[in-house]
Amino acid sequence: MKINTIKRHKSFNGETVFASHYSKTTQTEMKFSYFHPGCNEVETIIIWLSGLTCTEENFITKAGAQFHLKDSSSMIVCPDTSPRGLDLPEEHSSYDFGSGAGFYLNALTDGYKDHYRMYDYIVLELIPLLQETFLPKKFSISGHSMGGHGALVLGLKQKDFFHAISAFSPIVNPMNCPWGQKAFSGYLGEDKELWKDFDSCELIKSGNKHHKKILVDQGLSDEFYPDQLLTKNLEDVCQQYGQEVEINYREGHDHSYYFISSFIKNHIDFLV
Amino acid sequence: MKINTIKRHKSFNGETVFASHYSKTTQTEMKFSYFHPGCNEVETIIIWLSGLTCTEENFITKAGAQFHLKDSSSMIVCPDTSPRGLDLPEEHSSYDFGSGAGFYLNALTDGYKDHYRMYDYIVLELIPLLQETFLPKKFSISGHSMGGHGALVLGLKQKDFFHAISAFSPIVNPMNCPWGQKAFSGYLGEDKELWKDFDSCELIKSGNKHHKKILVDQGLSDEFYPDQLLTKNLEDVCQQYGQEVEINYREGHDHSYYFISSFIKNHIDFLV
Repeated sequence: MKINTIKRHKSFNGETVFASHYSKTTQTEMKFSYFHPGCNEVETIIIWLSGLTCTEENFITKAGAQFHLKDSSSMIVCPDTSPRGLDLPEEHSSYDFGSGAGFYLNALTDGYKDHYRMYDYIVLELIPLLQETFLPKKFSISGHSMGGHGALVLGLKQKDFFHAISAFSPIVNPMNCPWGQKAFSGYLGEDKELWKDFDSCELIKSGNKHHKKILVDQGLSDEFYPDQLLTKNLEDVCQQYGQEVEINYREGHDHSYYFISSFIKNHIDFLV
Repeated sequence: MKINTIKRHKSFNGETVFASHYSKTTQTEMKFSYFHPGCNEVETIIIWLSGLTCTEENFITKAGAQFHLKDSSSMIVCPDTSPRGLDLPEEHSSYDFGSGAGFYLNALTDGYKDHYRMYDYIVLELIPLLQETFLPKKFSISGHSMGGHGALVLGLKQKDFFHAISAFSPIVNPMNCPWGQKAFSGYLGEDKELWKDFDSCELIKSGNKHHKKILVDQGLSDEFYPDQLLTKNLEDVCQQYGQEVEINYREGHDHSYYFISSFIKNHIDFLV
């Protein structure tokens, strides 16, 4: 497997890098960014999954994570949020489906099933590539909004693999919110039994449990909190099924990267 | 004078705000952003001047400055880089002249002289508005590239007003580089005597001197360093005319915000 370096920017004593590689899973070139602090050996790679409309660029540009990792032995890696360069039915007609909105699942519907396999792409292709390239001792996972959903789902389904799971403003119960229902019916079809495999609340209900506490931050002035994110559903299901979770509800904070940058240090300290 | 708040984002325990106000100087609505850490009394306001193509958004989104100011009593305020909403000759035809490229001077040429007065706008209008609104004890000034030029020029011309001056990758001698020559002939006309009033090297030569050391950071892998930025000219003129200056040449660093975010903490500590 081969990484194509697109841009390199020295950052502190390390570097912020934009790269791509050909993915057999998505059958497209996939982009990702990363920050490497310049350490000799990598202890932890944090996989960061971004939200709707984002690319590999948003987090690495806006979150201020490099400052908190600069003296560490840990990297952060940010994949793009969907395959690109395709022209599938409805792929580019809305912000919450198709390009920029891969939802970190394996699609089953015609057209999408051959490319929109972000779950397998990250677990079976990107992570092995990072393992081979950087030889980290362990991986953790985090993300925002749609990417918070992704972090919870990947973390719970690969519970023995990830050291720690955290999320900002995650879509915790996509089966029960408009964003999730639109995406899951478009990617998975109408059989809701199949949806449960990519819904973090349902995964916990069916016995998936991470050995460590899950860390979540949710802004209380987040416009998507009441209808799309459904944070309380995660809180309830964790309590009921014995998954330890710390959910910090943050007064006045919204859905933006200004919120993420305010608390990213806490998450990094938890994830590394 | 009235500030229109466009967007507010809680950031740490303060807020990142996007605002605008009508400027009599530019005869346009002018935008700016700021971070207020939530302190009761404001000690220092840092004016940040951005570079070519930037708006009020780049620095406040990408530099990670909020983290370093969150426990302080100091704000940072980032004006837009030119008037907007006009349609002057050649105003929108290149990235290095007209919109997004105001060069922090007072234009003399037809059309531009009525609006492109970023020097007066900042000194005579924005700063008084900030004084009246936030009651800071003092102001400092910094900026990047074209905005580094602006910080040096405003700081030297208003040498008794600003507490401290710093710059990242500044265009130190615009009279002698292509970006400056294009801008100065377009805004000031062909009489080069008039250019000297907005060239930091010339200002130092003619006796302008700041009582405090000027702090400059310059990346050595910055593609604009050899032909546009001419950092050595500032170093020479400071030595010759007794202006104290600290110029840090940074191995491997480029012209991007990844460079700025790597050293912004040092600058903030110096400026507050």
